[in-house]
Amino acid sequence: MQTSGSPVNRVNVGDMLTRTAWRMPDATAIVHGDARLTFRDLNDRVNRLAHGLAARGYARGTALGLMSRNRAEFLITYYACAKLGVVCVPVNLLWRGGELAYVLRHAQVRGVVVEAALLDQLRTGLDELPGIDVHVIGEPSFDTLLAAAAGEPDAAVEDRDPLSYLYTSGTTSAPKGVVGSHLAVYIESLGNIIETGLTAADRMAAILPMFHTAQLNAFSTPAVAIGAAIHIVDAFDAAALLDMIARERLSVVFALPMMYRALLAEQEARPRDVSSLRLCVYAMAPMPQAELARMIHVFGCGFSLMFGQTEMSPTATFFRPEHQLSHPGAVGTPCVSVQVAIMDDTGRLLPSPETGEIVYRSPQVMSEYLRDPEATAAAFRHGWFHSGDSGYVGADGMLWFHDRFKDVIKTGGENVASIEVEKALFAAEPAIADVAVIGLPHPHWIEAITAVVVPKPGAAIDPDALLTRLRADLSPFKCPKAVIVLDALPRTATGKIQKAKLRQIYAGYYDAA
Amino acid sequence: MQTSGSPVNRVNVGDMLTRTAWRMPDATAIVHGDARLTFRDLNDRVNRLAHGLAARGYARGTALGLMSRNRAEFLITYYACAKLGVVCVPVNLLWRGGELAYVLRHAQVRGVVVEAALLDQLRTGLDELPGIDVHVIGEPSFDTLLAAAAGEPDAAVEDRDPLSYLYTSGTTSAPKGVVGSHLAVYIESLGNIIETGLTAADRMAAILPMFHTAQLNAFSTPAVAIGAAIHIVDAFDAAALLDMIARERLSVVFALPMMYRALLAEQEARPRDVSSLRLCVYAMAPMPQAELARMIHVFGCGFSLMFGQTEMSPTATFFRPEHQLSHPGAVGTPCVSVQVAIMDDTGRLLPSPETGEIVYRSPQVMSEYLRDPEATAAAFRHGWFHSGDSGYVGADGMLWFHDRFKDVIKTGGENVASIEVEKALFAAEPAIADVAVIGLPHPHWIEAITAVVVPKPGAAIDPDALLTRLRADLSPFKCPKAVIVLDALPRTATGKIQKAKLRQIYAGYYDAA
Repeated sequence: MQTSGSPVNRVNVGDMLTRTAWRMPDATAIVHGDARLTFRDLNDRVNRLAHGLAARGYARGTALGLMSRNRAEFLITYYACAKLGVVCVPVNLLWRGGELAYVLRHAQVRGVVVEAALLDQLRTGLDELPGIDVHVIGEPSFDTLLAAAAGEPDAAVEDRDPLSYLYTSGTTSAPKGVVGSHLAVYIESLGNIIETGLTAADRMAAILPMFHTAQLNAFSTPAVAIGAAIHIVDAFDAAALLDMIARERLSVVFALPMMYRALLAEQEARPRDVSSLRLCVYAMAPMPQAELARMIHVFGCGFSLMFGQTEMSPTATFFRPEHQLSHPGAVGTPCVSVQVAIMDDTGRLLPSPETGEIVYRSPQVMSEYLRDPEATAAAFRHGWFHSGDSGYVGADGMLWFHDRFKDVIKTGGENVASIEVEKALFAAEPAIADVAVIGLPHPHWIEAITAVVVPKPGAAIDPDALLTRLRADLSPFKCPKAVIVLDALPRTATGKIQKAKLRQIYAGYYDAA
Repeated sequence: MQTSGSPVNRVNVGDMLTRTAWRMPDATAIVHGDARLTFRDLNDRVNRLAHGLAARGYARGTALGLMSRNRAEFLITYYACAKLGVVCVPVNLLWRGGELAYVLRHAQVRGVVVEAALLDQLRTGLDELPGIDVHVIGEPSFDTLLAAAAGEPDAAVEDRDPLSYLYTSGTTSAPKGVVGSHLAVYIESLGNIIETGLTAADRMAAILPMFHTAQLNAFSTPAVAIGAAIHIVDAFDAAALLDMIARERLSVVFALPMMYRALLAEQEARPRDVSSLRLCVYAMAPMPQAELARMIHVFGCGFSLMFGQTEMSPTATFFRPEHQLSHPGAVGTPCVSVQVAIMDDTGRLLPSPETGEIVYRSPQVMSEYLRDPEATAAAFRHGWFHSGDSGYVGADGMLWFHDRFKDVIKTGGENVASIEVEKALFAAEPAIADVAVIGLPHPHWIEAITAVVVPKPGAAIDPDALLTRLRADLSPFKCPKAVIVLDALPRTATGKIQKAKLRQIYAGYYDAA
């Protein structure tokens, strides 16, 4: 019987590239500025790097850090690791110093592949970590690895061997290393091809950082598997991206809601030919209905929200084009390989439409949190993966996200979803550009609902007037006790608002109350 | 770390049904005559059967025979086995007596689920096998199993546990049991959804027998996974099927070339509304170009050839709609999870366009031949799965099938592909309905090329005139030494011509020469 590591029938994310390179070697794999790599080029470089890494002692189970912005070498390193069974550890480019050192040490990396421009940043963490190899892209420490022999590397890699450790941003505790297996990412990649209807004719913009699972595994690995082209966008600029869409006839875009807002404004001001677009996917946050309707009209293509988390590799549900206007605010229906349920805190599955924790079963679920059996056991309790999200399923099977459990505010004996208050704020005050509603320690309310708002450029917000208007729409216990006006909210690299950081900064806000 | 058998993230074909039943419980799963099952109904019956089987001692690794024509109970039994980790052994309905007994004994089945109408046939094999449970569909021995408790069964099943033993028709030796894992069929099912663009809106005709991997795993499991409806066709009848397509608005048909020929004739004689059709897949044999062009025109949809074998779970390549008229006679380009190469008999991979054995690497490759380590080792030699097919890959990546290795004729020091001679025969004689070219033992030629032909109804074939015409098109060494005229060719249940049987029958044909 063939074991799961046999090259004849193993499951390996690296093999997805090998197969595409054999099937359509001359098709475009990656476009970055004036440089274009075919799948043959890409696979050839991956194989050469794999041989070079193997010669330096990297083998099945060794961890290799990867600190790079979006560029071909990011994917070359990721796929070289995959083919060797080396575990790739993409580094969040917002990390510095102690946090960076923590992750590299926790992952037990043997070396780091780094862009020259990021070397100083890497050194802020590396000073504490002697003996780690540093391979600088564009310098001999990386380029000599690439100069090694070609040909497919011959390594035994099992289906459920770790492909990557992806660290989730630790806002309240140390970052956790999500262990993603080849199997999980393989099945997620096939699933995302199905859900997005991806074909070899697609050309997608890679805007969000590849060190994040959304760009890496929800878009890049499906593109490589099916043979679609990845067009790398160095930094988001609405005008430049619209020019690129028109010039390169891009068909798929994955971006944040705020980016779509900028694209809409730019396209309305100076229309380009965007008729090549067929799908715009947004993530991390829902979009206001009127804005969304306008975007669908102006861009003339389907919009879809991708919902999930790193532990799901990452897609759990898609809020599909046909539901965008009929189910405003929903997060979608399950992907083909994902079962979604709602659970109470005793492990009982709840019927529709009761609210509880969103839990999943799927081959896409991570293997574990690295070297954290307690957190792993907690996440897998009662035989389901616990998302940490609160939500419910409607009678028609639609999933509605209520809030992150840790963002639900316990105030005066009631539970209030921060998201509900945020929606009311947006509706009550058109001058709001950005908002975060959090619970802050309060002597009377235990947690006091607090709105942190950012006005649109040139606009001003009057907290008292805003609170008066809000009281017309919201139950009194859901109304914020205070409104804090800021220039910007703290966000992660993928645009998620860091509510934990806000709670930390304003922990003493009501001390005088 | 979660093992591969954890319900949280295991790979199990049964879970594909569970997820669809949760996602879209009220959608139609199976239509058979006037009976319609939703996915909720189907999953409920599967769960009840699984509990019933478990109560009778069926557990992970137990084998259960399944002898049934296409009906809901076939899939109910298949999925109940999947959820329990029981190995399903679908029985070829052409088997009787010793062959049937051989398979049931070799698979070590503990019991057999059988249609009442097939019970006498089962007994022809079962007489030699005391102690095997017989569960007759529609009688208490099966129905009481279904009456058990509902709810998802709780069984530990590993990713690579066997889902089924599918016996390949043994024409020259005993049938071999192809061990298909959950993983292989899972990944093949996702791949076929991608390749055929299957969606929950599709309605497909199930015409070919489900005991064969093509109907079972290339069509039925993808349909269940994505939520498409399966419309069961009891017996092929062109007029009845066209009526069904029009009435039920079927979108996908999978049938044999000879069935499409009958459908074309019927549709041309009495046109129905077939505008719902989007894809007609044919298997087992290529179709003559003019006929294919006519079908594409008359049915107004895409045609595609599926190419593979039981050991590939089964799809290896698709000869896609866009290539049908530009690459006549090809077998297509690889599926997303399949790598195709050509190998010589020393294990060296051959460059395009050299001819050699078609070999594969893919997670879809079977685990092994059951209790046959020698055949398994031979099939997996040199790190690839050996198809037994001879072929080559064109410069554009298209795969061309040359012949089954065992059907290549060695005559006077030359190798001749039987298929090439068959094509020349069809071209030379329009009165030919069916043809098989085989090599028969010959004192001078070692093997003498021999054509076995079936005339169209009412037509006659003059062997001498046919051979004279052939000599104008074929090199002399490729011309048949004799033409045998028959009323019909022996075929397997899925329509494959049994050349080995012909070689056996006519083994002494040239003895007098």
